[in-house]
Amino acid sequence: MIGSSRVSQPATGPVLAADLGGTKITAGLVNGGGEVLATRSVLTGAHQGSDAVISTLVEVLLAVRADAAAQTHLEAPSAVGIGSAGVVDSATGRIVSATDAIPGWAGTDLGTRVSEALDLPARVLNDVHAHALGEATAGAGAGRASLLLVAVGTGIGGGMVRGGLIDAGARGLAGHVGHVPMPEAAGVGCTCGRTGHVEGLASGPGMLAAYLRAGGQAADTREVVARAEAGEDLAAGVLRTCAIAVGRLIGGLLNVMDPDVAVLTGGMAGAGPLWWQGVHDGVAHEAIDLVAGTELLPAMAGPDAALLGAAKFGAVPLTATREDPR
Amino acid sequence: MIGSSRVSQPATGPVLAADLGGTKITAGLVNGGGEVLATRSVLTGAHQGSDAVISTLVEVLLAVRADAAAQTHLEAPSAVGIGSAGVVDSATGRIVSATDAIPGWAGTDLGTRVSEALDLPARVLNDVHAHALGEATAGAGAGRASLLLVAVGTGIGGGMVRGGLIDAGARGLAGHVGHVPMPEAAGVGCTCGRTGHVEGLASGPGMLAAYLRAGGQAADTREVVARAEAGEDLAAGVLRTCAIAVGRLIGGLLNVMDPDVAVLTGGMAGAGPLWWQGVHDGVAHEAIDLVAGTELLPAMAGPDAALLGAAKFGAVPLTATREDPR
Repeated sequence: MIGSSRVSQPATGPVLAADLGGTKITAGLVNGGGEVLATRSVLTGAHQGSDAVISTLVEVLLAVRADAAAQTHLEAPSAVGIGSAGVVDSATGRIVSATDAIPGWAGTDLGTRVSEALDLPARVLNDVHAHALGEATAGAGAGRASLLLVAVGTGIGGGMVRGGLIDAGARGLAGHVGHVPMPEAAGVGCTCGRTGHVEGLASGPGMLAAYLRAGGQAADTREVVARAEAGEDLAAGVLRTCAIAVGRLIGGLLNVMDPDVAVLTGGMAGAGPLWWQGVHDGVAHEAIDLVAGTELLPAMAGPDAALLGAAKFGAVPLTATREDPR
Repeated sequence: MIGSSRVSQPATGPVLAADLGGTKITAGLVNGGGEVLATRSVLTGAHQGSDAVISTLVEVLLAVRADAAAQTHLEAPSAVGIGSAGVVDSATGRIVSATDAIPGWAGTDLGTRVSEALDLPARVLNDVHAHALGEATAGAGAGRASLLLVAVGTGIGGGMVRGGLIDAGARGLAGHVGHVPMPEAAGVGCTCGRTGHVEGLASGPGMLAAYLRAGGQAADTREVVARAEAGEDLAAGVLRTCAIAVGRLIGGLLNVMDPDVAVLTGGMAGAGPLWWQGVHDGVAHEAIDLVAGTELLPAMAGPDAALLGAAKFGAVPLTATREDPR
């Protein structure tokens, strides 16, 4: 837990930031005002394993630093912030666990290796947490005391930001919001190996699978959405069930967490009005009267949200990041 | 959000604390080491309305202060902390909303009125939040970075404490953990007016109602538990269903919040081994591998937990309590 006196100070200089996913790495220079001044994107090359990925990450960060140095009016960056796939121990910058999308990623001392390569302090957080922090800082949460982000895409994840701080949890695991019981998902398998979680039903792949189970035929989730919007009853019914489940998830989380604003992002957030209507109906089914008026907004920080969140995280000194054990 | 530099300092002097519920008010003097040095309990007299309740609260706080003053070795209290029924705006000490258990309680400027009557700074938080903070400070969460409290009794509520700070939410509403979807509760009415929430099924009254719906006959929840423990199949089945629902709730919350430890309290936490077995099975059904090892413990701070939490909350200066809006 970081002292708010620290967080409320704007970062004094630019920060090198990176958003590292299984497919691509985006890096940029972000100034204290939250402007992205220079960016580069490269393919992650995940199949080459963790050492190669770190080399690629360091290269693109060095390239962004060189780009910035060539613009004489820009101050040199004083820190690095990285949003990375996997579960992150932000106190040490280490990847605690990860899927096999990047072979060998779990156990990587990402923060230390980037810090040594760039000779700058480096801080690491989970990429979904970075996304939430960016949205809280520069998107729908700007000027708000707290924000709950729910991302519905390949999976369902999220993050809670209060007072400019991400709630990473005791082990960096907070925000696995897709892994909660949901009546509509009863019996449906989840990516985590359990059954009945909302992610198994209502993620993008979950919705496609539900449509196929119901006897429909479609190549991908996008086609299911298109069929629903075109008036096909089967697709519309499946889409509505999935959207209501997302809404029930969010409504329950409003009751549990009472955020100032809730934000929906991820591929499904672009699925159109039928889906959003189902989400709103699901929220209304769950949210107690006192939180029912909480705004539910689409994400507004744009494609650089995670980069902005990583920069904000990187701007805070490492020594202030450990939770106060009282 | 309070700066950790502030919170990590132990309170320098004793704090007057009160735990104000619909039935009784307990007040005490709590020193900086978390010891309860003097307590008094009185009936709330809720039916007499908010003004009378505040008078009773002030009287008992003054009496405790006088008790302490008579013990010449005790330092005079420098602040007041109050855990109160109802939704609390801790920035102002005002009761934002409340059930009709205390007529007129909503809208009461509790903090200001107590502060003026005792001529001491007074801070107010919700009683369940006080309970969680007390358990985090002096119970199962002592020495831990974070704690999730789930209380299963007349209702199901809770609170999350991180780094010694309660997550009260944007409007003091965080912790309504009983109001989330639960398959076992499908169609069951909830106290909030909705259906399908875990509280409607698995609270004490919920379990009794489930037993009656199933064709059983019992005078109260205690009798259902006794019948289950004695081997009656109907009671055992209902108890197990309710306990599993509580466990699924907790397992999902572990995934969402990743607390260092989870703590179960409230009347049902004393329901015995069959109930606890069901809870553990429910947790195992939901918790993803990475959080499945999180300890789930019974509360350990004893009957003064809320008093200790109120004292801890009261010991922090009011000016540091508002969330940093960035």
